[in-house]
Amino acid sequence: MAQKLTPRSEDFSAWYNEVVLRAELADYAPVRGCMVVRPSGTALWENIQQGLDRRFKATGHQNALFPLFIPMSFFEKEAEHVEGFSPELAVVTIGGGKPLEEPLAVRPTSETIIGHMYAKWIQSYRDLPILLNQWGSVVRWEMRTRLFLRTTEFWWQEGHDVFATAAEAQANALQMLDVYADFAVNDAAIPVIRGRKSESEKFAGAVTSLSIEAMMGDRRALQAGTSHFLGQNFARAFDIKFLDENNELQYAWTTSWGLSTRMIGAIVMVHGDDQGLVLPPKLAPIQAVIVPIWKDEAQKAQVLEAAGRVRAALQATVRVRLDDRDELSPGWKFNDWEMRGVPLRIEIGPRDVEQGQVTLARRDRPGKEGKSSAPEASLVGAVPTMLEAIQSDLYQRALAFREAHTRYPETYEALREAVTDGFAIAWWCGRRDCEAKVKEETTATIRCIPLDQEPGHGQCIVCGEGAAERAVFARAY
Amino acid sequence: MAQKLTPRSEDFSAWYNEVVLRAELADYAPVRGCMVVRPSGTALWENIQQGLDRRFKATGHQNALFPLFIPMSFFEKEAEHVEGFSPELAVVTIGGGKPLEEPLAVRPTSETIIGHMYAKWIQSYRDLPILLNQWGSVVRWEMRTRLFLRTTEFWWQEGHDVFATAAEAQANALQMLDVYADFAVNDAAIPVIRGRKSESEKFAGAVTSLSIEAMMGDRRALQAGTSHFLGQNFARAFDIKFLDENNELQYAWTTSWGLSTRMIGAIVMVHGDDQGLVLPPKLAPIQAVIVPIWKDEAQKAQVLEAAGRVRAALQATVRVRLDDRDELSPGWKFNDWEMRGVPLRIEIGPRDVEQGQVTLARRDRPGKEGKSSAPEASLVGAVPTMLEAIQSDLYQRALAFREAHTRYPETYEALREAVTDGFAIAWWCGRRDCEAKVKEETTATIRCIPLDQEPGHGQCIVCGEGAAERAVFARAY
Repeated sequence: MAQKLTPRSEDFSAWYNEVVLRAELADYAPVRGCMVVRPSGTALWENIQQGLDRRFKATGHQNALFPLFIPMSFFEKEAEHVEGFSPELAVVTIGGGKPLEEPLAVRPTSETIIGHMYAKWIQSYRDLPILLNQWGSVVRWEMRTRLFLRTTEFWWQEGHDVFATAAEAQANALQMLDVYADFAVNDAAIPVIRGRKSESEKFAGAVTSLSIEAMMGDRRALQAGTSHFLGQNFARAFDIKFLDENNELQYAWTTSWGLSTRMIGAIVMVHGDDQGLVLPPKLAPIQAVIVPIWKDEAQKAQVLEAAGRVRAALQATVRVRLDDRDELSPGWKFNDWEMRGVPLRIEIGPRDVEQGQVTLARRDRPGKEGKSSAPEASLVGAVPTMLEAIQSDLYQRALAFREAHTRYPETYEALREAVTDGFAIAWWCGRRDCEAKVKEETTATIRCIPLDQEPGHGQCIVCGEGAAERAVFARAY
Repeated sequence: MAQKLTPRSEDFSAWYNEVVLRAELADYAPVRGCMVVRPSGTALWENIQQGLDRRFKATGHQNALFPLFIPMSFFEKEAEHVEGFSPELAVVTIGGGKPLEEPLAVRPTSETIIGHMYAKWIQSYRDLPILLNQWGSVVRWEMRTRLFLRTTEFWWQEGHDVFATAAEAQANALQMLDVYADFAVNDAAIPVIRGRKSESEKFAGAVTSLSIEAMMGDRRALQAGTSHFLGQNFARAFDIKFLDENNELQYAWTTSWGLSTRMIGAIVMVHGDDQGLVLPPKLAPIQAVIVPIWKDEAQKAQVLEAAGRVRAALQATVRVRLDDRDELSPGWKFNDWEMRGVPLRIEIGPRDVEQGQVTLARRDRPGKEGKSSAPEASLVGAVPTMLEAIQSDLYQRALAFREAHTRYPETYEALREAVTDGFAIAWWCGRRDCEAKVKEETTATIRCIPLDQEPGHGQCIVCGEGAAERAVFARAY
């Protein structure tokens, strides 16, 4: 722990990798482009899973488990889907020592195999809607990989819903986007823009793709969750049909929606600082760590007794850990828990014990500013209150940062300048040419067309033609 | 639902498949030997996961996520392991449209790739023990498959622990076996025999394999969980070394232990009956279903009001569902929920409402015998008490069944006869020849050498030579 992190301001990318490795969130695997999610990262992911799963169940979803392998021929049934995913597939050609008659793709996403099963399960309108989610990992053969942000294998959830009408499916795609936004804002303390993807950025096989977009600490955008209205594309490809109330056979309407371990990368990049990770309390596997401080055995006994008492008082309502390791100094422990992003440190030294108090140190405000004393007797109320304040302050800080780096350029030159500093929100005519020009000349892409924008008309920031919507332009992960 | 199940006594295997499909636990996937775990099966698996995960955490374990892919060369590092698993591998040879330089196996189990990471993470005795578990799926190219019992892909957990000493590793292997036994007995209501595998039945690469063995409803044995002491085999193969307290480099000692979706098959086969699935209350996704009964609209309003009241009263402590579907008759619902194994049905009809009572129907005792009336006001106490009674009775019934079909033969002829009826516990000299002879002549195998047996000496049931231990012989899944 002795070595300091590369400062965030100096080399954001190096800082990111160092935090992920040194906070022991993940490590590189001995397989090209793959990662190992270590216990700290997995515990964080499990909290993300719980926060999402609870929301999915509240919207009537159930979980299911579909196969890892998909026959190659399934991909060819949906023209855009095969075009989008074929180049990224990992393919099993040998099974049980013999060449397979039909090679199997390791799933890059499961619309095809789930669509096949839905065709079997759905007969009548009474079988609809089907609302299912799957937790698991998928594989996409990526060229350039980054821990959590882009890896060959990644963990995620994928929801796959089926409806009798287009309107229901569209409402569902929006509902699940809102679930993601609610999770990002309230649990991950990350402000997001809900929007629609441009044609060139949408999911292979979708009619409409929606996403939530967040600003990272280096002012780049990250797509943190997507929700797709698939129209009848997959229903036609996989023969998902139902008898409607008039006894007529109809193709169904489907959606799919996913959020991945990328969210962990977003949490690192939005909240982290030069001391390491900063976790939002709602998701932190350890919300408060108690560090006892002593110099001799007499002090040790006294301090550990108080520390044990504080842990016992808190553990019903707070995920608390007592770091009573003998061989390490308090200063080393402070640094270590800061690196690991624990939101609140509770220091207890001999003087604290004498005065019946503890010292609280907020992770989001390192140094003196974030330190305060609190009577031991007050902690059962004070600690949860402080965790809530940290949660709220992290969100407000991220929001203020995004707002400080969001511009509304009115000329192409101003757009070019704006995307070097963060998000640029500007009128866009909707034409692919204009989008491509910006990408080529600035490397910024259209992240989304925000859903929350006042209706109006303007001139396209690129070509000057009439435009009915504003788009968010930004450099992105 | 109209069609009856094949009776268990007539064709156990057909009955099993029908229950799994019609209770909608799982379905066949369009990939050879693979299954889809449907929402009812997944919810059951999630409850199994929670019951186990809680116990793993109580023994100091954390979860982690390792890659799905393992370089083929890793398997060759442990001689027995490669021999055992090579014939079963699914192999990825193409990635991103190009042939891979080194093919990748889809993990059949993760000792190798986890061992590789442990070698990187472990330096000193201070880093030990490492106690990690992974939830996920693995792939083994099986020739003959059965839903849940043997499928190409299956879901499981695999624990992988590392210790400084052999004694600690051995104690850990036993501890995790005990965790499985505790789960099987107390949550799944399945009695198990804890034992050691014979040399010919042990895990490829293990020094000692332990297992829990259960008797299914057709009196065959099923291995329901395994825990392996791997000695230094994988430590040597993957260079898992640590500096001990004397600053000397030592190979570590490792264990691995796993329990899979096979447990769902065991629950079906141990508790199920001719009406379908019977779930132990502790694991049942729905513990009690309320079925309102009405004939006209006036009754309906009255009955639904009472049903809503009962649900509201119970839902804090019981996983309860109100089946208020309009288009289905009460009789159809009874059959449907029986098929799905819900432990307790709460019927509420107009006369019940008048008398301020409900009718309780226990799933484990179909027909009049399991029906009773209870005042509505008593349900908050009565329903949990009845669920506990069902849990306990299911276990006792399974135990009595196993005991009724366990014999202690003293001659080889008696052994041959005994294994046609269930378990045979008999002296065994420990020689592979004797084990092979029994297998060849009876198809029964040694399931385990029970850990709980009184020390003693006898004559091998096969060869008559001196024997120090008894073994369980049985036909097995």
